[in-house]
Amino acid sequence: MSVTQPAGFTASGVAAGLKSTGAADVALVVNQGPTFDSASVFTANRCLANPVLWSKEVVKDGVVRAVFLNSGGANCYTGPDGFQTTHAVAERVAERVGVAAIDVVVCSTGLIGLTNPRDKVLAGVDAAHAALADEAGGGGDAAAHAIMTTDSVSKQAVVEGAGWSIGGMAKGAGMLAPALATMLVVITTDAVVPAADLDTALRAATRVSFDRLDSDGCMSTNDTVTVMASGASGITPSLPDFTDALTQMCTDLAMQLLHDAEGADHEIAITTLNAASEDDAVEVGRSVARSNLFKAAVFGKDPNWGRVLASIGTTAAAFDPADLDVAINGVWVCRESTPAEDPTLVDLAPREVTVTIDLKSGTDRATVWTNDLTHAYVHENSAYSS
Amino acid sequence: MSVTQPAGFTASGVAAGLKSTGAADVALVVNQGPTFDSASVFTANRCLANPVLWSKEVVKDGVVRAVFLNSGGANCYTGPDGFQTTHAVAERVAERVGVAAIDVVVCSTGLIGLTNPRDKVLAGVDAAHAALADEAGGGGDAAAHAIMTTDSVSKQAVVEGAGWSIGGMAKGAGMLAPALATMLVVITTDAVVPAADLDTALRAATRVSFDRLDSDGCMSTNDTVTVMASGASGITPSLPDFTDALTQMCTDLAMQLLHDAEGADHEIAITTLNAASEDDAVEVGRSVARSNLFKAAVFGKDPNWGRVLASIGTTAAAFDPADLDVAINGVWVCRESTPAEDPTLVDLAPREVTVTIDLKSGTDRATVWTNDLTHAYVHENSAYSS
Repeated sequence: MSVTQPAGFTASGVAAGLKSTGAADVALVVNQGPTFDSASVFTANRCLANPVLWSKEVVKDGVVRAVFLNSGGANCYTGPDGFQTTHAVAERVAERVGVAAIDVVVCSTGLIGLTNPRDKVLAGVDAAHAALADEAGGGGDAAAHAIMTTDSVSKQAVVEGAGWSIGGMAKGAGMLAPALATMLVVITTDAVVPAADLDTALRAATRVSFDRLDSDGCMSTNDTVTVMASGASGITPSLPDFTDALTQMCTDLAMQLLHDAEGADHEIAITTLNAASEDDAVEVGRSVARSNLFKAAVFGKDPNWGRVLASIGTTAAAFDPADLDVAINGVWVCRESTPAEDPTLVDLAPREVTVTIDLKSGTDRATVWTNDLTHAYVHENSAYSS
Repeated sequence: MSVTQPAGFTASGVAAGLKSTGAADVALVVNQGPTFDSASVFTANRCLANPVLWSKEVVKDGVVRAVFLNSGGANCYTGPDGFQTTHAVAERVAERVGVAAIDVVVCSTGLIGLTNPRDKVLAGVDAAHAALADEAGGGGDAAAHAIMTTDSVSKQAVVEGAGWSIGGMAKGAGMLAPALATMLVVITTDAVVPAADLDTALRAATRVSFDRLDSDGCMSTNDTVTVMASGASGITPSLPDFTDALTQMCTDLAMQLLHDAEGADHEIAITTLNAASEDDAVEVGRSVARSNLFKAAVFGKDPNWGRVLASIGTTAAAFDPADLDVAINGVWVCRESTPAEDPTLVDLAPREVTVTIDLKSGTDRATVWTNDLTHAYVHENSAYSS
C-alpha cells in the first residue's frame, strides 16, 4: 500500500551503511512510464541542503524518472563537496536506470553538517537498483522503511480513484513547520496527469495539509515532496477529481506525521472560525500552535485558554480583542474574552485535542495541527546528535 | 537599592490575601515630587489585560503620581467587571495618596482569566498606603518582593548619576518575548527630566534591553514599564547622560530576568555581526532564540550549529546562504556554511553560552538573549495553573 501500488512504479530500500545500526538507509523509486510527468515542492528555508539545491533544478522541466533518497545524513551545509556527492548519486542512478541525471531527484535526511561517505552512497545506488521490486515484491514498503530516521513507524498510504490510484510514503517526526515539515514525501500515480496539472494539484493539496502542520515551529532544510505520474492506467481523471484524491493523500500522510511527532503526548487541531480571510485563520491557528506556554499546558492537561488568547493577540488578524470565543475539546471556556464554561469540564486525558477559536469577523476558516510540548520532546531533541 | 533609593519616592509591599501562600502580593510606589514626569511602554499584544487598558490612558499626559501593582492574578480577560476592579483600585489609591485617579498606573500579574477579589485588593491598597516607607524603612525592597510570582529572587538595581540616581525593580521569569516580556518594571529617578525626554530615553533603553529578551517566544498581556522622575535632586542631566544611565538600568534588570527564567539551565547571548541593518541582526538573532530545536540542543550540551543555520534561513535578512560563519562559545564550528572547527571543543557545561553569527553583509550588529529549553521549563509551564 505504498508508492508501488499504482501501476508503473518499482521501488526498493536497502542498507548502504550510512546508519550505524545497519538498518536500511537508501531508497529508490523509479517511474517506468509510459509518462514521466511530475511536480515538486520544497522547503521555504533559504539555507538549503545540497540535494534540494540539485533537485530544484531537476524538477523545472516537469519530468522526473526516479527519486533516490537516503537517511543517515542530510548532506546539508557540507559545501561543494557535498553537492558533488549529490550530483554523483544522480549520475549513478541515471546510469543504472538508463535515464538522464537531470531527471533524477535526490533527497537526504539525517543530521546536518555531516558529509555522506560518497563511496557508500554510490554502492547503495547499485544495491537499491538491484533490489527494485513492484508492490507484490514489497518494493514500496521497503522504500518507506529505508527513509525513516527518528520515525517510530513508516508512513504509507493509498488513495483509489476510478481505475487509477495514488500511492505515497513519507518520513518525518518533528521540525514540522510552515511551508513544509522536516519530511521527505514521494507520491506516485498511474493516472495520466500533465505536469502543469500535477503542479496545480500538488500546490492545492500541500497548502491545506503539510503546510498546516506546525509541530515545533522549526523549518527544515531538506523538505521535498515529489509526485510522479506514470500514466500506466491510461485514464485521465478530471483535475478536480485528481486534486481531491491528492489532497486526501497529503492529508493522510500529514496526519501520520503529526501522530508520530517526536515525544508528543497530544495531537492538537486548532480550528479558527469566522475569520475575515483564510490567511487570518491560518495566522491565528499558527500563533497558537507556536505557543510553548500553551503547548506545555496541554501536556500538563491544563485547559489554559488565557494562553490561547495571548497568542491570538500577537497576530495581525481582524478581530475584536474583547469579543473572542474559545472552546477546548468542545467546552466553550471563554466567551467574549471572559471566562465562560467551567474549565474542569475539559478532559485532556485523550491524545486528540481540539481548540476552536471564533473570531466573529467573517466567514473563512482553517485548521492548523500541532503537538504538545513534553519532557520527551526536550529529551529527544537535546540528545539527538549525541 | 531599589525604587526608593532616589530621593522623592516611598514604597511598600504587603499581603492582601491574593496569594494563597499568604505572601506579600500588593505593592505601591509613590512619587512625592516635586516633579511628576513619567513615561511608560506596554506590551504589543493586542489582547490586553484590564490594568494595561487603564494605564495606557493614565500615562498619556506624561504625569504619574503613583504605581500600584498586584501579583496573584493578572486581571486579564475578566471583562468589564475586571476593568471596574482596576478602576476602583486607582480611585482608592488616589484617595489615600491625595492625587487624581487618572495619575495612578495599575499593574497586575498572575494567572489569566481569574477575577481579582475587589474587596481584598482595595483593602490591600489601604494596607499598602499605611506601610509606605523610604529606602531606610525598606519600602523599595518590600515592593520588589511583593510583585514576585514564579520569580525565585526579587530583581532590583540602582544606577548612580552625578548627584542623581535611578532605582528600579522588576518581576518576570518567563514569557519573555519581543516588545517586552512578561514583566512589570517600575523605575524611579530623582533627576529632573521632562516627560518627553523620559519617553525618548525609555524607548531607546527598552529597545536594546527588554525588547531583545526572548525567553520562550511568548508575549504577555500585562507587560508594563513605567519610569517616574521626582526631580528631588534638583539636577537636570543631559539627555544622553540620562539615556545611558537608563539603558544601564534596563539592561541590568533585563539580565536579572534572563537569569531567573523559568527552568532554564543556560543563558544564551546570540550576537549577529556584520548585518546589513540592525533590524536584520535582531531578526536573525530572534529566529535562533525561538528555535526549540536549538534551545533543546543547548540544554543537551550539543553545539548543534546546523540548527542555527536552519533558523537563519527562515529570515528575510540579507546574507549569502553559502557564506555564513557561526561560533559557539568562541569556537568557529561553521565557516562558509560548512563544518570548520571541531564541535567537541565547545564546552557547554557553563550556564553562559554565546552564539556569534557573521552575516558578512554589512556593519551592523545586535545581541538577542534567550534561555535553553529544558525539562524544567516544560514542567513549570505544564503545572503552573494546577
